[in-house]
Amino acid sequence: MDRLEKQLQFIITADGAKNIFRRTTLADGSRRENDAEHSWHLALMAMLLEEYAGEAGVDIGRVMKMAIIHDLVEIYAGDTFAYDEVGNATKAQRENEAADKLFGSLPEEQGKELRELWEEFDAMETKDAAFAAGLDRLQPLLNNYMTKGASWARDQVDSSKVFKRVEILKRSAPQLWKAAEFIINDSIEKGYLKK
Amino acid sequence: MDRLEKQLQFIITADGAKNIFRRTTLADGSRRENDAEHSWHLALMAMLLEEYAGEAGVDIGRVMKMAIIHDLVEIYAGDTFAYDEVGNATKAQRENEAADKLFGSLPEEQGKELRELWEEFDAMETKDAAFAAGLDRLQPLLNNYMTKGASWARDQVDSSKVFKRVEILKRSAPQLWKAAEFIINDSIEKGYLKK
Repeated sequence: MDRLEKQLQFIITADGAKNIFRRTTLADGSRRENDAEHSWHLALMAMLLEEYAGEAGVDIGRVMKMAIIHDLVEIYAGDTFAYDEVGNATKAQRENEAADKLFGSLPEEQGKELRELWEEFDAMETKDAAFAAGLDRLQPLLNNYMTKGASWARDQVDSSKVFKRVEILKRSAPQLWKAAEFIINDSIEKGYLKK
Repeated sequence: MDRLEKQLQFIITADGAKNIFRRTTLADGSRRENDAEHSWHLALMAMLLEEYAGEAGVDIGRVMKMAIIHDLVEIYAGDTFAYDEVGNATKAQRENEAADKLFGSLPEEQGKELRELWEEFDAMETKDAAFAAGLDRLQPLLNNYMTKGASWARDQVDSSKVFKRVEILKRSAPQLWKAAEFIINDSIEKGYLKK
């Protein structure tokens, strides 16, 4: 198979992300959102909120690339809910196998590059990855806030779990951490989220 | 309203793109795709196909930003089908008004920057915009090919219209133009598309 054919086949396979549904609903509460929509939203947030990435700044192109590909492995591995302990115990292995299959279908050096970018995102260590991961935590918080805690209530999530989930923002985007803190506290006060 | 609040409000408004449905279906034909999914797909295609952007190359970060925001005005203006002559006669005015409202809600310099980026995309003149616009034409072609011409049949589109639609690729990504040409001709041969 020639190079471009492999790439176009990957682009068609990636269409499957539009059918991987997350626990979070849309901001209007009408239905769950899927991985493609979620990833698009993160990339948009990266563009809009770059200025909060701390003094060292980020490489916004890399952050956007991470946002776009960070959930692609779920096409084969499925979505693992952030607060699902059983699912998270097997997540790494399932996603690694999915990554072998998915990124392995691309021309070799391109597959390697994308896999490394995905692994970097997942490790949350570099400043680009920590910023992208912070947005990945902030986005469902916003959608939960807009729906008066729709997915929190359904999944019996309490505020200590949500605080822990968004903690990465403290280090990657302190002002966004403050905003997240405000939203969580206001959600508790309004009865959207159990303390 | 303070700066971050405006930006977060914009991010929440943007969630509406997940409810703007296009004429194209998903690659599995199960339903129409929405603007958020479509824009995510273009950004992914930009990452994967950058090497075909011709000798002068593109600024991939800018191309991805255009992909992410290029349909945002449809939150207020609605989707205008590429082959709808009546709709396209009023499209520019409707979208300009939508852009005033949408981008006008952001901090001034940021709204201006995004609006300029959207206008640049729409004009298809710069190499970044021509490449992004080419992908915007190639993506529905792929999804139509995968669904044996689902939206072509429904909307009675023939091959001359499709050829004209993807013509921008000739100049922005000659190898992708060749691929598009192959796909269109193969679609005619297989009976997915009327000559």
